[in-house]
Amino acid sequence: MSGSTFGTLFRVTNFGESHGPAIGCVIDGCPPGLELSEADIQPDLDRRRPGTSRHVTQRNEPDAVEILSGVYEGHTTGTPICLLIRNTDQRSKDYGNILQTFRPGHADYTYWHKYGIRDPRGGGRSSARLTAPMVGAGAVAKKWLRQQYGTTFRGCMTQLGEIEIPFESWDHVPHNPFFAPNAGIVPQLESYMDALRKAGDSVGARIHVEACNVPVGLGAPLFDKLDADIAYAMMGINAVKGVEIGAGFASVAQKGTEHGDELTPQGFRSNHAGGVLGGISTGQDITVSIAIKPTSSIRTPRASIDLAGQPVTVETHGRHDPCVGIRATPIAEAMLALVLMDHALRHRAQCGDVRVDTPRIPGRAPD
Amino acid sequence: MSGSTFGTLFRVTNFGESHGPAIGCVIDGCPPGLELSEADIQPDLDRRRPGTSRHVTQRNEPDAVEILSGVYEGHTTGTPICLLIRNTDQRSKDYGNILQTFRPGHADYTYWHKYGIRDPRGGGRSSARLTAPMVGAGAVAKKWLRQQYGTTFRGCMTQLGEIEIPFESWDHVPHNPFFAPNAGIVPQLESYMDALRKAGDSVGARIHVEACNVPVGLGAPLFDKLDADIAYAMMGINAVKGVEIGAGFASVAQKGTEHGDELTPQGFRSNHAGGVLGGISTGQDITVSIAIKPTSSIRTPRASIDLAGQPVTVETHGRHDPCVGIRATPIAEAMLALVLMDHALRHRAQCGDVRVDTPRIPGRAPD
Amino acid sequence: MSGSTFGTLFRVTNFGESHGPAIGCVIDGCPPGLELSEADIQPDLDRRRPGTSRHVTQRNEPDAVEILSGVYEGHTTGTPICLLIRNTDQRSKDYGNILQTFRPGHADYTYWHKYGIRDPRGGGRSSARLTAPMVGAGAVAKKWLRQQYGTTFRGCMTQLGEIEIPFESWDHVPHNPFFAPNAGIVPQLESYMDALRKAGDSVGARIHVEACNVPVGLGAPLFDKLDADIAYAMMGINAVKGVEIGAGFASVAQKGTEHGDELTPQGFRSNHAGGVLGGISTGQDITVSIAIKPTSSIRTPRASIDLAGQPVTVETHGRHDPCVGIRATPIAEAMLALVLMDHALRHRAQCGDVRVDTPRIPGRAPD
Amino acid sequence: MSGSTFGTLFRVTNFGESHGPAIGCVIDGCPPGLELSEADIQPDLDRRRPGTSRHVTQRNEPDAVEILSGVYEGHTTGTPICLLIRNTDQRSKDYGNILQTFRPGHADYTYWHKYGIRDPRGGGRSSARLTAPMVGAGAVAKKWLRQQYGTTFRGCMTQLGEIEIPFESWDHVPHNPFFAPNAGIVPQLESYMDALRKAGDSVGARIHVEACNVPVGLGAPLFDKLDADIAYAMMGINAVKGVEIGAGFASVAQKGTEHGDELTPQGFRSNHAGGVLGGISTGQDITVSIAIKPTSSIRTPRASIDLAGQPVTVETHGRHDPCVGIRATPIAEAMLALVLMDHALRHRAQCGDVRVDTPRIPGRAPD
Repeated sequence: MSGSTFGTLFRVTNFGESHGPAIGCVIDGCPPGLELSEADIQPDLDRRRPGTSRHVTQRNEPDAVEILSGVYEGHTTGTPICLLIRNTDQRSKDYGNILQTFRPGHADYTYWHKYGIRDPRGGGRSSARLTAPMVGAGAVAKKWLRQQYGTTFRGCMTQLGEIEIPFESWDHVPHNPFFAPNAGIVPQLESYMDALRKAGDSVGARIHVEACNVPVGLGAPLFDKLDADIAYAMMGINAVKGVEIGAGFASVAQKGTEHGDELTPQGFRSNHAGGVLGGISTGQDITVSIAIKPTSSIRTPRASIDLAGQPVTVETHGRHDPCVGIRATPIAEAMLALVLMDHALRHRAQCGDVRVDTPRIPGRAPD
Repeated sequence: MSGSTFGTLFRVTNFGESHGPAIGCVIDGCPPGLELSEADIQPDLDRRRPGTSRHVTQRNEPDAVEILSGVYEGHTTGTPICLLIRNTDQRSKDYGNILQTFRPGHADYTYWHKYGIRDPRGGGRSSARLTAPMVGAGAVAKKWLRQQYGTTFRGCMTQLGEIEIPFESWDHVPHNPFFAPNAGIVPQLESYMDALRKAGDSVGARIHVEACNVPVGLGAPLFDKLDADIAYAMMGINAVKGVEIGAGFASVAQKGTEHGDELTPQGFRSNHAGGVLGGISTGQDITVSIAIKPTSSIRTPRASIDLAGQPVTVETHGRHDPCVGIRATPIAEAMLALVLMDHALRHRAQCGDVRVDTPRIPGRAPD
Repeated sequence: MSGSTFGTLFRVTNFGESHGPAIGCVIDGCPPGLELSEADIQPDLDRRRPGTSRHVTQRNEPDAVEILSGVYEGHTTGTPICLLIRNTDQRSKDYGNILQTFRPGHADYTYWHKYGIRDPRGGGRSSARLTAPMVGAGAVAKKWLRQQYGTTFRGCMTQLGEIEIPFESWDHVPHNPFFAPNAGIVPQLESYMDALRKAGDSVGARIHVEACNVPVGLGAPLFDKLDADIAYAMMGINAVKGVEIGAGFASVAQKGTEHGDELTPQGFRSNHAGGVLGGISTGQDITVSIAIKPTSSIRTPRASIDLAGQPVTVETHGRHDPCVGIRATPIAEAMLALVLMDHALRHRAQCGDVRVDTPRIPGRAPD
Repeated sequence: MSGSTFGTLFRVTNFGESHGPAIGCVIDGCPPGLELSEADIQPDLDRRRPGTSRHVTQRNEPDAVEILSGVYEGHTTGTPICLLIRNTDQRSKDYGNILQTFRPGHADYTYWHKYGIRDPRGGGRSSARLTAPMVGAGAVAKKWLRQQYGTTFRGCMTQLGEIEIPFESWDHVPHNPFFAPNAGIVPQLESYMDALRKAGDSVGARIHVEACNVPVGLGAPLFDKLDADIAYAMMGINAVKGVEIGAGFASVAQKGTEHGDELTPQGFRSNHAGGVLGGISTGQDITVSIAIKPTSSIRTPRASIDLAGQPVTVETHGRHDPCVGIRATPIAEAMLALVLMDHALRHRAQCGDVRVDTPRIPGRAPD
């Protein structure tokens, strides 16, 4: 229980380091009979993989996934599915100079003090590269949820540094490297990132993800509330420092008459709840917003200490994402899918198939 | 696994409903030999209990805790500690009129659709009353952590509705019903709440909690990151819609040069990390901020549907907190303590006693 | 995770000590909508309770169960069910003399060395009294399984000390204090126990339990095999030293041609498997046999050491069962029911409702 | 939670099928700083691997293990250790004829009814081949326990079919293919197996394993008793039908005066307890005996049914172990090591380092 397993019934056990021979995961508890091949998983991995624009790390990883187990003649068998991704573009020498010091804002310091040993190659286990297997597992969850309930997932960047990105259309998202839902703002984002890179600095971002067509009734009263599990999943993504469900921090200043989503036979009138009440899904869209901090590995010199506790100046070279938020959208989607998948199975366990003996109202608020 | 157990090594299993005969919890995994009696637990319960000012629910519950097991001659034995709190002031008739309808923003709707049955008496299991046993369990965790590491916990309200509460001093917190760290603002908070109550409305709040003197090294790389588990714990508190660690959402607009906390032999220069890097504690104070939504049970009439899906108007009478955030501070402290306690035991399991073979720097940033 | 929770989806968390104020358990994960009251649980508790014949401990406990939560208007709500049983006949002075020594064969020694503290009153947590809440939880599981699948449970004693008890009929079991399936042998068992009591000694026993009308498909390939979980459940009962499924140790000397149960359209021809193949139920009766050691608390003087490691002679007075096996039958039935209940929910989670797309053959072998 | 993870703090997640591309496991929770390479693991795998004598399956697998993660510069880092073993000698056509039928005594029937799909290639997930990764994980646990406490493990065959094998010396075990602790009986075992193979039949076996130099205090009162977890681990090994701790089923006929192991300042006088009292280790050797059923895949024709429920005759060709018990000794040792490892970490979590404030007596009974 050093924490490398995510989920309770749809369990994903993650392994690997940034510059080891391979990374991967084992998915235990997948329902049998799901049609599955690498082709179902690779597209989401491709959305996340590095080296696809000048605004992300230049490490070139194909992130080709191999299914090692759990699938027979193109269908899941109900036994563990091992996904393997070989690392192919390690350059560990890039990191040699940081072995004796701690980068400000980096897990260097905490790993060293916890374990008395750390794998410095590419950040080792603390690298965001370890989200790749989760994106793979998320693709399996997404496929099952879509077939079973029609549930779908999507996400976009809503802020890059100080630049807020006004929502225009989901259609824009796949057509720019930022997952921005706004085509017009892309040039501004690009020059912002170019300047940042030149300055040897990094910046934060805000990401929004949502699930649509969610069955009502997923979750638990306490403690495994659907929103609590979502918060756990999101805060577990590298560099995330804040999580909101629905109205989030805006609900602090709201009155009850404003916040509580009214119900009509035609559906909910609003969605401040973000699709969760009392820890259980309402059938509304589940909406989540996360804050991602700036990358800690930057070229600008910074004050730190070495292993002996003496003051040093640290500057980090090598290949890094100047804004890890840029590639975070598919990761957050995947984590949201994994949470819903887990609770879908938990619901079946305790309550059997989704209940239909009372009227359901449409989950989506009218636009 | 319907989710009523919190923690992995220091496990708290919660039971009860708002208007049932009793609520309580079973704490499994407490280290043996801790001096413990009801007197260690009651003070925190008293900080949370209802009926202590006109700004909270007028339900009068002494919340007297009884230790049923796990303690022998004043010391914990290492076996499960059952805490029992009898409910004494139920008035379930207050809720009779809501049995056929769903309150907007309330768990009524989701419980009904998940389980096909709901206990309407005082919100049943969805009541914030179920946080009382967690406050009790948190008091046990606090005592052990204080003895073992000197770790302490504190919290305060930082915003009530639109009113931001400037921090003045921790000394003010115990002396007003809002847990406000500012004596001068209390009259404004009181008249705000009086007006709200008169209007039959409710409002949100923001709470800050922190842990001081935290050992370095608590947490795990993934997925049971210390901050992920904190997010899970906080989002699992009733009515919470957002969680931040350290700089939180402010880190979106920060540069890496600003956000990354520099290290010196005298300690960290700042604490944007909120005490966690790579999912593991740095030894800095752990700082957490949460958003609490307005109560859904309000007197103002609102649109809803009944069990048959027909439109109705709902107004809720009975005794409710017009701002559940007012009593949330000791709850958030308790949940933070439970997370740290769990990870302290997990650390001992994998890594043995806290490591001392490298220099540690002071965790607290200079004021 | 000090181990006081049994099960994964139908989770039972046990608390209490033999001479504390109360014992009990919290059942988490029970499906909603099950009709349930104390009257469903008390009969099984009465079958297990002490003081009902001269062959068991003379401690007089009504073992009256109280449901503290999780039931509303006579039906389970899907939230945790707390069962409470008050201790009423403690006489802790009986045990005063053993506080400085270790009884041979007793948990005294191990508790002391593990925890550095032990509750000596009636054996504290190590008392078989703690099986009472499990019998209560088992009654809930039995009721649900009977309603859902028609599954039933039964058990009997098959050996007392050297006396093997030939099976005659299940009808005899409720009519003698030994749960013997043979009326004629009861006088012999009684005089055997009388002599044993007079001699200040104790003796072991063998118990057989089975489940009938078990759905095919419960269990998992590895490690949570149905038979592995049964072994865990049975070996976890106080004083159990051996567990067999189906042919058990007899299968060592069997040939494959003898052991493998042949299938016909009319059903299995035999049941050496004991109802489990590859860790998954076949639909045959699940048959389990357990060995229970003699009670360690006996009047006969024995060699031991005291807390300082010095040699002493120990003899134990007070009220004890001279054969704990006598009351073990309802306990073993309950544990078997809890295992099946857990796997029934796990099956629903991963595979949905029981599959019916291939022919099933009768599970019971012809007599 | 389809059950592919073993352990709670030292967690081993197993994946793969007999004839898939690879099998393996992920070990999560290993303490950091343990010197580890493939050379520590391979010897135990070699003891278990097939094709080493004419008495076991002729499948030729080198079972070469590769460490994919969790080790840096020859030491464990505290992060997950993935062990990968490629399958190299699959011949799946051997199994083509059994796809439409069910082998008596085989998991064919139960997998099909549970999942609606099964991987027939070499038994798929139900193959004993999946114990190989556990032997690998067990080797890691053994190394840590030996370094930390001096704990060692050993095992031997005590019965093959009707032939009981009198214990002579541990020295004989490595020098015959049966793990027999008796050199003189080996010719008899060989001719027995030769006759069996010729007859197209299979047979059961009994295996004894033990742990020496076990720290006192490992385990938990209930339910995760050390012996309960051992029973779970052993019954989870393929083909096991019975488990005994210490005196096992012999304790049924024992008196308390005989069974309870007396204590003296020089140590315990006997070890009927098998090293466990009240679910917690005494420091005595932990002794375990298991019954292994005969292999179900045999050449002799047997009655069965096909997928349509029609009667058929089944005979199984291909490569199988005529007695799976022959290779079971290293498997049982590994599982015992995994249980002790898990409880060693659990003990550290709750109770800190092993207690030394009271006199300990030698665990081993005098010979």
